Amino acid sequence: MTAYADSQEKKMTQRIYNFNPGPSTLPLIVLEQIKHEVLDFHGSGMSILEISHRSKEFEEILNDAITRTRHLLGLDDTYHVLFIQGGASLQFSMIPMNLAVSGKPVDYVNTGTWATKAIKEARILGKDARVVASSEDKEFTYIPENIPIDPSAAYLHVTSNNTIRGTQYRSFPETGALPLLSDMSSDIFSRRFDPRPFGLIYAGAQKNAGPAGVTLVIIRDDLLERVPRDLPTTLKYTTYSENRSLYNTPPCFAIYVCDLVLKWIEETVGGLDRMETANNQKSELLYGYLDSQDFYSGTARQDSRSRMNVTFRLPTPELEQQFLAEAGTARLGGLKGHRSVGGCRASIYNAVTFEAVSALVDFMKDFVAKRG
Amino acid sequence: MTAYADSQEKKMTQRIYNFNPGPSTLPLIVLEQIKHEVLDFHGSGMSILEISHRSKEFEEILNDAITRTRHLLGLDDTYHVLFIQGGASLQFSMIPMNLAVSGKPVDYVNTGTWATKAIKEARILGKDARVVASSEDKEFTYIPENIPIDPSAAYLHVTSNNTIRGTQYRSFPETGALPLLSDMSSDIFSRRFDPRPFGLIYAGAQKNAGPAGVTLVIIRDDLLERVPRDLPTTLKYTTYSENRSLYNTPPCFAIYVCDLVLKWIEETVGGLDRMETANNQKSELLYGYLDSQDFYSGTARQDSRSRMNVTFRLPTPELEQQFLAEAGTARLGGLKGHRSVGGCRASIYNAVTFEAVSALVDFMKDFVAKRG
Repeated sequence: MTAYADSQEKKMTQRIYNFNPGPSTLPLIVLEQIKHEVLDFHGSGMSILEISHRSKEFEEILNDAITRTRHLLGLDDTYHVLFIQGGASLQFSMIPMNLAVSGKPVDYVNTGTWATKAIKEARILGKDARVVASSEDKEFTYIPENIPIDPSAAYLHVTSNNTIRGTQYRSFPETGALPLLSDMSSDIFSRRFDPRPFGLIYAGAQKNAGPAGVTLVIIRDDLLERVPRDLPTTLKYTTYSENRSLYNTPPCFAIYVCDLVLKWIEETVGGLDRMETANNQKSELLYGYLDSQDFYSGTARQDSRSRMNVTFRLPTPELEQQFLAEAGTARLGGLKGHRSVGGCRASIYNAVTFEAVSALVDFMKDFVAKRG
Repeated sequence: MTAYADSQEKKMTQRIYNFNPGPSTLPLIVLEQIKHEVLDFHGSGMSILEISHRSKEFEEILNDAITRTRHLLGLDDTYHVLFIQGGASLQFSMIPMNLAVSGKPVDYVNTGTWATKAIKEARILGKDARVVASSEDKEFTYIPENIPIDPSAAYLHVTSNNTIRGTQYRSFPETGALPLLSDMSSDIFSRRFDPRPFGLIYAGAQKNAGPAGVTLVIIRDDLLERVPRDLPTTLKYTTYSENRSLYNTPPCFAIYVCDLVLKWIEETVGGLDRMETANNQKSELLYGYLDSQDFYSGTARQDSRSRMNVTFRLPTPELEQQFLAEAGTARLGGLKGHRSVGGCRASIYNAVTFEAVSALVDFMKDFVAKRG
């Protein structure tokens, strides 16, 4: 058990073990800081909810969030860190609008619901969206290997972690000069990776980076050069890069909470390597238990398992209903699988403690034991 | 002084008098409720920031916010209440995207910066945007009269209150069968008006309705019928109307705060008529003082004055600098005019108390008296 988990657990008496897939649990010290300063932000005599987005106070928050993102992910000066509203779902449209190139196809790997939606939005915009690899043949239970790279495409889009099916890329395809774009909504800041192959990374904040209501977009200079001039102003990446995400009023509170979460990763957890270690410990505990018995069965192929979303089934739908009901009574929340696939899912994002995963495994063992 | 103001003042010792133009001051009881339940929402063992947007708890918040909006504004069943991200600035684009009609012009009244931006976005989208009336000839210091109504247009767009220039429509143009659309970002819920001529009303929440990060959109059935099928999914009004604003993860916390603000208007203030009375009392106090002396001069024409944003000048820019500096020391914040026009501005939205406006007038008198 890590030190931050330990310090959190002492205060967990009222709170449930929250395995929600997103919006999801936040570090307790982040919530406590919000509580502490919601009436008066840093002696300003105003709530963070009442402060101008053009004030010194908010500028500091925004700059801090950008700096921490750069530092945690190891981004060089060619990358711009933007905060945009509309969720990852709006990015499904903004990406082809901004980054498609006339006469070139746009390539996608289809690993589930969210990738499918990204492809659909590119096609709505009339782009030649090609599915160059897919795991649809086996209900999206794995990450495709040997993804074809076609340098004549405008970009290759992947979904780094698939919350619904519980799969995750272990390593990313080597795309050479072809810009790699990734939806990292459900695993950003959960592990170290080399950002350099990526032309654009985006993440709805509500899983690993903060609350619902803001999307982090990281874009490289050469991709910004593609942005057409005649797009609606708030749908152009250049509007955000040229105005430091302050062209119009941003979602100030959501950015403030993101900044607190990033500060927690850097200063309390101790950086991305430690965060990754903690995440590995949690997922190893849960997968280790899954592999040690045959009542519960994991749904993702072993080599494609997500360290963020652990999907599993019980022998029957009736047992799954009982499991979810008893888990709720035991103050373990958010374990229901996505409505489109059923079953069970434990989302064990950054802010979920080892203690919580341990409590879940204990509960799972008890549930089996009671049934003899 | 109203009862709610009185109850708030007792707790104002640490807080400044906040005249920010947006994000702007919130009712103290709203902030206190956020503080009270930010670690545990209604005994759920989770923060409102950690709760699923598909949970019963959030559904109740969303339904309550919709019901209160309907009740406060007197909307009948033909209207849909939507919550959309992206600010009023995204609405400048979504409106022509969704509601323009092939072969018809789209008509706008230009009353300042925000109307100008709305017109610009319609033109970026290739629409035939006509400025049918404007107050640009006198630096947007008034609301045009006798606005031409052309029933062959797709719609007429107005900006009900102009935060930068301090003007506001007293009554709206009678458009007959031509749908009237209005940006009400800075005066929604501040006064009673007849919604029936409006095909669409929108408001960034961060002035009178809540925090930054969510935009309230009210749209009538017949306008929804115009929405083209081939728009990007998150940019179609029908996506929000058909999914109760839950197609993708909404900005849950911002909607929660909006709901608390609407509850405050209904239950603490006592409804929209009382809210309007309180707003009239505040603006009469401030304009009454402005008209009683000749050191400060209001910038808006008397018949077009905003009851939300009171814009004024001092005899010289140097005196304005001193005024703003001394106001800050006296814990009166947010009085600087918009960077595009300079001068001073007191934004006296719903949550600004009579006491705060009274303190401002006292400060203004003292500032003059000291200069003898």
